[in-house]
Amino acid sequence: MQYIGFIAAFCTTISFIPQVVRTIRTRDTRGISLGMYSIFVFGVSLWLVYGIMLHDLPMIFANIITVILATIILVMKVKDVMR
Amino acid sequence: MQYIGFIAAFCTTISFIPQVVRTIRTRDTRGISLGMYSIFVFGVSLWLVYGIMLHDLPMIFANIITVILATIILVMKVKDVMR
Repeated sequence: MQYIGFIAAFCTTISFIPQVVRTIRTRDTRGISLGMYSIFVFGVSLWLVYGIMLHDLPMIFANIITVILATIILVMKVKDVMR
Repeated sequence: MQYIGFIAAFCTTISFIPQVVRTIRTRDTRGISLGMYSIFVFGVSLWLVYGIMLHDLPMIFANIITVILATIILVMKVKDVMR
């Protein structure tokens, strides 16, 4: 049963890879919401803290990757807004 | 300690609201990755199934909302691609 959780975590984590690739390639962040990525990066950072508190390695690992990917998108959006 | 998990779930769930608002308002989905939202909606649906299996109400509730919000963005992106 737990394997469903693993596949779910895998999918929601890697899903940000195509978005990062697209944003780096096109440099088009107009359609991307600054609000979404600000709240999302904050939320995933809390998930990471929670995972560390629970000593849950898969949770820590998945959330580190998601934080990195979502932060790349957030930084590109912030750069675009400040231009 | 568990309250950190609740705040984390709250943030990652509601973060999609500003993206939905922006996408509906601007109709600009060019910067949004079809790959990301396809994999993400699939992944969150599995989280929902996993939550149902575990009889975990907060997990079920948060993932239903996230599925709805992410599906709205996915549908608008697909419509845009097919135009």
